[in-house]
Parts: sequence; structure tokens; C-alpha cells
Amino acid sequence: MADTPRVLVWGENRHEHRDQRVAELYPDGMHTTIKEGIEENLGDRFTVGTTTLEEPEHGLTEEVLASTDVLVWWGHMAHEEVSDEVVERVQRHVLAGLGLVVLHSGHWSKIFRTLMGTSCTLRWRNERDRELVWTVDPTHPIAQGVPQPIEIEAQEMYGEFFDIPVPDELVFVSNFSGGEVFRSGCTFRRGHGRIFYFSPGDQDYPVYHHKDVRKVIANGVAWAVTDRPERKAPTLERHAVGDFSV
Amino acid sequence: MADTPRVLVWGENRHEHRDQRVAELYPDGMHTTIKEGIEENLGDRFTVGTTTLEEPEHGLTEEVLASTDVLVWWGHMAHEEVSDEVVERVQRHVLAGLGLVVLHSGHWSKIFRTLMGTSCTLRWRNERDRELVWTVDPTHPIAQGVPQPIEIEAQEMYGEFFDIPVPDELVFVSNFSGGEVFRSGCTFRRGHGRIFYFSPGDQDYPVYHHKDVRKVIANGVAWAVTDRPERKAPTLERHAVGDFSV
Amino acid sequence: MADTPRVLVWGENRHEHRDQRVAELYPDGMHTTIKEGIEENLGDRFTVGTTTLEEPEHGLTEEVLASTDVLVWWGHMAHEEVSDEVVERVQRHVLAGLGLVVLHSGHWSKIFRTLMGTSCTLRWRNERDRELVWTVDPTHPIAQGVPQPIEIEAQEMYGEFFDIPVPDELVFVSNFSGGEVFRSGCTFRRGHGRIFYFSPGDQDYPVYHHKDVRKVIANGVAWAVTDRPERKAPTLERHAVGDFSV
Amino acid sequence: MADTPRVLVWGENRHEHRDQRVAELYPDGMHTTIKEGIEENLGDRFTVGTTTLEEPEHGLTEEVLASTDVLVWWGHMAHEEVSDEVVERVQRHVLAGLGLVVLHSGHWSKIFRTLMGTSCTLRWRNERDRELVWTVDPTHPIAQGVPQPIEIEAQEMYGEFFDIPVPDELVFVSNFSGGEVFRSGCTFRRGHGRIFYFSPGDQDYPVYHHKDVRKVIANGVAWAVTDRPERKAPTLERHAVGDFSV
Repeated sequence: MADTPRVLVWGENRHEHRDQRVAELYPDGMHTTIKEGIEENLGDRFTVGTTTLEEPEHGLTEEVLASTDVLVWWGHMAHEEVSDEVVERVQRHVLAGLGLVVLHSGHWSKIFRTLMGTSCTLRWRNERDRELVWTVDPTHPIAQGVPQPIEIEAQEMYGEFFDIPVPDELVFVSNFSGGEVFRSGCTFRRGHGRIFYFSPGDQDYPVYHHKDVRKVIANGVAWAVTDRPERKAPTLERHAVGDFSV
Repeated sequence: MADTPRVLVWGENRHEHRDQRVAELYPDGMHTTIKEGIEENLGDRFTVGTTTLEEPEHGLTEEVLASTDVLVWWGHMAHEEVSDEVVERVQRHVLAGLGLVVLHSGHWSKIFRTLMGTSCTLRWRNERDRELVWTVDPTHPIAQGVPQPIEIEAQEMYGEFFDIPVPDELVFVSNFSGGEVFRSGCTFRRGHGRIFYFSPGDQDYPVYHHKDVRKVIANGVAWAVTDRPERKAPTLERHAVGDFSV
Repeated sequence: MADTPRVLVWGENRHEHRDQRVAELYPDGMHTTIKEGIEENLGDRFTVGTTTLEEPEHGLTEEVLASTDVLVWWGHMAHEEVSDEVVERVQRHVLAGLGLVVLHSGHWSKIFRTLMGTSCTLRWRNERDRELVWTVDPTHPIAQGVPQPIEIEAQEMYGEFFDIPVPDELVFVSNFSGGEVFRSGCTFRRGHGRIFYFSPGDQDYPVYHHKDVRKVIANGVAWAVTDRPERKAPTLERHAVGDFSV
Repeated sequence: MADTPRVLVWGENRHEHRDQRVAELYPDGMHTTIKEGIEENLGDRFTVGTTTLEEPEHGLTEEVLASTDVLVWWGHMAHEEVSDEVVERVQRHVLAGLGLVVLHSGHWSKIFRTLMGTSCTLRWRNERDRELVWTVDPTHPIAQGVPQPIEIEAQEMYGEFFDIPVPDELVFVSNFSGGEVFRSGCTFRRGHGRIFYFSPGDQDYPVYHHKDVRKVIANGVAWAVTDRPERKAPTLERHAVGDFSV
């Protein structure tokens, strides 16, 4: 990684322009609010930028990805508008060491489904459930500095069964007042990249203004920075007996 | 295993004699009700017996354990009265291939703490919470034939953080109406033995009469039968180059 | 599943027609030898058929997949000739409950890479290494009835780093005489499907005639049969408060 | 943790006084050589001390443990001389957040067996095998800065089956020239403590002078420092509805 890791928050940026409620909650776009939450926690150690769907190549050119340490992804209504070429490119960078933090409805983004290999489907209901986010791995770095539980007054409900591979680490499990549970904080290692999925957050609620949610996202960003500065994907290697240098 | 696997339900059998409410719910002892639930589901394929704390050596002699395929454990108020010698004996048999199903307050039994290596502590509250048990591993054999979720009208609450090692498989997660979550169905392999922990069940509630709870316990018993009929613990083995026969 | 589970062995069937050595080792095609090994172990309980790349739709129509319980996959030189449409179809069936056993060079097949989300690359060398396959999960059903270790006189070497997600269960680890190690037996659950990857086996060696290798593949097939007879993928479900019937 | 984490290397210190070969390899005791390897890598950021079996309470009083961040353990011939009281004390501190790095023959120490719950037995042979240590989790912090593989010219062989719980993370797998494999680098979280087991190292070989082995041990020490400065074990907690402050 660079001396100062670079974070890029990718926002779909559609609801903000079509739905007044969302525009009021996130007047500068959800990506901007997410960025501010990361800066609030990591601003002295990380550089944080944003980009959106409508940029050329969705703002995710080869050059941009090569100079990014952690990509944060928020999308919802326009998953299918993300080009397959860009998805393939992001996957290639993740396998080479790009960190990826996927938020909320990003569970159904092309990039997350491509990296998981499953449908990534779940149960849902948008009726202002109270969500309590419980830590089940208290020494995990992503769980540091947050209360047990995190209380979110009103949220969209996401419930099990969540069709993902068994996470490498299960950090958070949520309780919803309507009766459901959800594996809301999960880590996965894919190739040389680290992936953190965190479910709290929806365009209809002010969740990305919530202090503890911002802390978790920042923790996830810090955790997702690769330990391998060379940024190279694993490759097929033929090697001779006794020659382990490959 | 024997042609017909033998299950032994171990009951502490104290509350039933001291507390009228428990005696009414479980007039023949909780161990008998648990046994009947297993027979209801597996009776044609398994032989099920019971024993209790007050028996000599708590009913768990070398001979009894050697002829048992799966041991089911319920204890609560008298964990400390179980002798260390019997605990060491049961551990030895589990590592050699005895299956173990630990129920509810058995989380704090000596045998479970010995096999886990952790404190096995948790949060709790006995105020008639509704518990909903959600399946998060839908193809696991222990989850077959039960609804999503299992609904238990009134239960003691068990909540996170539950201080266990990360389970080998997480099968169920519970939602409590008071707001908590709990990893309520967990599997662990230790030595040649298989262990299933399942939290629903308490002396103050008729939980072991609940059809779905009985089904899960029976599924856990069937799953815990070892694939290794020889019943032998792993041992330190010195062996010569090229001699892999040990 | 059907009363008698149906296994389908998919073979690329190219080397057999182009390379005399392979034709001599596998005169009826590798898929036929693999089929015979499964029948040798499971013939009384399973029905086993074969199909190959050159069949229309590679022999993997919607109807064929819907009536198959476990698909066994061997491919090597023609991975790219498998159509994306068929790969998408097989993935969909696996997520709905089709079992999948991927053999050796199938690590780089489109279907395996799609289900894993990673590059699935590894080290390799084709110089007649001796391979010893060690069991590290002795109570796993796939490891039953095989010696510790399985000895394979001559084999292609596959070595770490093998770029797969952390397996749900690691069953076998191989030692190669040239000095490498390899996670040679791994299980993964994806959606409602179970996947077993087993690396021993190459067109240049008579590995699929090896008694223990045949036993492991048959064990893997038996393990991969789903517990969920309804064969349905997880889906996005909206549901109302208190309505858990979805 | 303190601003400068404190590491304590515990050495059995017996072979060094009874066996001339060991005394020549480790003239100041194995614990001193291990300490120097940690200082070589972490000296500017950590404070490293040593203690031995023959000290009162084996040098592991309540006060010493309370002021230690990571304990490194090497023992072999005198496991049974470690008092049960001290073992119980160390376990309690690990569950409260003390990091623990267990080396080589420490696999059979009382403290490791107590924390694992299994027999911790394995295969072995002391005949100068070459050991190659392969990384199977290349982004793990413990694997940073070491070659793929680490080559150790001569070593005692440790082989599978190693009777431990499935590790939380498998970092290294070793190949021995005699044909065996071994899960040689494993992590476990227990309570609030982190445990790293690393098998290379024996009194009869100069392994603790090996540059890469020293690097891995130092990486393990740095990883094992808890994220939770308060150093407190999980406890049973009763709490009221809606009162999540416990």
C-alpha cells in the first residue's frame, strides 16, 4: 500500500436525485456522507475520495483502481447498469489485493455476486424495524470501539437465509424488532484481497449519519488494506523440482 | 457403531424434585421427556435410555460409555457436583468417538467447558421472551424438516457474547423478543467425536414437548454418531521413514 | 433426491482421442473409468451415467440437470469451449441443490471458477512425483475407508498457493516427493448445493484406476447429495411483520 | 495493551542443562535465543523478557501475567511438572486477553491441551527430515515477509493427524522429506485471547537461529496482541429487557 492508504467510495447516486426523502437525508449524495464518516475516524491516516455510476467507466478505470487501496461500494436500483467489463476489472483488482467494503443493498451488486459465487439473496421488509447489531467476535479489529449492541432506531430489515458462502469470520449478527436475525458483518478473503460486508444502511434512513455505523465502516476499511504491497494476483505457475523461487 | 446406535440421555434431575412448576411440566423428569422426543423421531433406528446424576458414578461408568454411541446432556444447578473423574472419562470417550449433544444450560457444564477450553459464559434473562430459531445453514442435516423459523412462545433468553470457540458449523441463530441474538445451534469436532450444542430448552418452560425442538435434538443425535466404528482416540505415534502403517 | 440418486459424470473426452498414452490408460474415455469407480463403490445405491463436451449443449440440458443429483466434472484442455450459457445453467442448478464433484484439472473449469469467485490458480509440474494424500479430518464421511495416507506412485504435482476461498472443510492435504503440499480434498457449500474438490487424477497417469482414489470420489458423490429434495434456489423474499411463512 | 507491548518468553530450560548438543546450539538457553529473534524483528516496538520453569510459580505469578501482553511457550520433557494452578491461571489470563504463542513440542503442554480441549497428539520422527513450510493464507499478517516456502534443512518431523480443533485460520502447511504433511501454523481465538501455534523448532536443531522462523514467531507475537486494552474475560451476565449496558 501507499504510505497513506487511498479509499474510494463508489456511490450509485440515483435515489438522491429521484426521491425527495433521500435527497433530504443525503443532500450531497450518500457517497459523500459515507466518505465523511470514514474521514471522521481515519482522516489523519487515510485519503478518501468518491466516484459514481454516471462517470465514464463508472469512475473505475484501470488507473483509478491501481491507485486505490480500498473500494467502498453502495448501490441499489441500478446494479444491472454496471458494465460487465468494469465488474470483471474490479474482481481482478480485488484478487490482486484491492480491499472491498460492500454496504447494505450492495449484497446484490454484480461485483459481490461475482466474488461470492452465490445468489446473495435474502429476506427483507422496509417498515422501520429497530435493528440491534451484536458483536459475536469481540477481539476482531472491526468490532473495536463500538457498543454492545449498536442500536439503530429505524432500518430496513434484512433477514436469513442470506445466501452467501460461510464467511471466513462472522463479526456481527443483527436482531430486528419484527423477529428476524441477520449475519450483518462478515469477512471473506478472495485471492489477495479482503472483503467486508456490512448490512446496516439504507437510502430511506439516516443510517450513514450514525456514529457507530460510521465507526464500523471505518474499521472495515482499515482492516481491508492488504498486507501485500506488491498488488499481484495469484497465477498458474509451472516450476521445476527443487526450484521454489517462482 | 452398533447396528442400532444407542443413545443415553443424562439428566441432572434436581429441579424436578424441588420445584413444583418443573415437576408439573416434566412429571417423569426432563430426561424422560427428552428421551421420548428422540424416540418419536428416531425410535425405529436408535435405542434410547436415560441415567441421572444421583446414580453411582452418575450412571456413566466405563462400561456404559463404551456401549453408548451418543450422549445427550442436560444439567443446570448441580454442575459442580459432577465429579472431575467422570468428566475426564466422558472427555476421553468423546475424543475417541462418542457423540455428544449438549442442551441449554449444559453450556456451563464441566464437560462442555473442558471440551471447549473457554468460559462458555453468556447473557441471560428469564422473563418469557419469545424465541425464534432461524436456520442459517439450510443444507445441514441437523436443519432438515424444521420450519423457518422455529417459534417458541416463551423461553429463557440466552444472548451474545457467548464465549465459545468459533463453531465448525453455525446451523441456527435465535432472535429473542427482548432484542438479543444467540448462536443457538453449533457443531464442533473434537478428536474423533462430534459435538452439537443446542440452546432452546429450560426447566421452567415446556420446550422439550415442542415438536420442532424434539426434531432438532433427534437430528443432532443422528448427526453425532461417529463414522468410525473402532472408537479409538488419536494418539502420539512415532514412526519410521516410509512406514505409514501406524 | 430420488429414491435412487442419479450421478452424471461429465468428461471433456479430448485427450483420449489425441494422445495415445491417454487412450491406452483410458480406452473407453476417462469419464467411463470414473463412472466404473463410482459404481464399484455405490452401484447398489446410485445410478451412474456419463456425458461429454461434444454432446449438444455438452449433454447438460435443463432436463438432464433437473434429473441429476450429483454431477462429476473432469475437464482440462478445452475449458474455454464450454459455453457460458451452460456454465450459468449448471451454477443455477448447484445453487438449487445439485451436488458437484470437481476433479483435478477441473480446478480451472469455468464452472468451478464461477462458483468460487477466485482465480483457482496453483503451482504444477508434470514429472511423476509420488503423491501421498493425508487425512486431516478423520471423522469426515468423505475420509471413511481409505488408508492414512493414500499412496499414489506417480502423479502430476499440484502445489500451493491454491487460490480458492478458505474451504468449509479441509479433508485431505497432499505431500509431493518434490517438496510441495496441496489442499487436495476440500468441501464448499454454495446456495443449496454441496461441492467437493479432489485433486488426484490426471490424464497421463492411471489414477482413476486406483482403488483408494475411486473410494474417495464415491464418498464425495454420496456426501454431495442434497438433504433438500425440493431442489430450489434461495430467492429474494419480501415478507410482512410476523409472517414467517415465506 | 501498554504503549509498548510486553512479551514474555517462557522456557522449560531443561535440555540445555542435560544434553551437550542442545547446550552448544543454545548456550544461553533456548528462551534467550527465541527472545533475541523476537527483538531482532520487533525490538523497537516491543519489550521482550524471559522466565523459566524453575522460577517460583514458574515465573508466572498473577502480577507477571497481568503485565504481559503476549506469552511465548516452549516446553518438552517437563510438561507434567508445570503446576495445575499455574496452568489454570494462564488459561484465565488468555481468556481475558493475554496473547499466547505456542512453539513446537508445546503442542503437548498442559496449557495448550487445556485451551484446545483435545489430545493434541500427532506423529513424529526425529531423523533430520528437511521441512518446507508453505503459506496457504498469503494475506495473513503472520505470513508477511517470509519466502514461499521457508526451507529448514534438518528438523524433527511432525505429521498428521494432529488432534486439534479445526483452526480458525490455517496459515502454514509443512512438507517433510520423509513424506508427511503437517498443519504447522494455526490460529485460534479463545475468549478475548489470541493463540498462534507454530511447529518448526526443536532442541536438537538450530531452528531458532533460522532467520525466517524468527520472522514468523515475531509476526505471531505482533498478531497476538489483543485489540482490547481492558483485559477482562467474558462473564455470565444477567440483564433486564432493554438494558443492554451490561
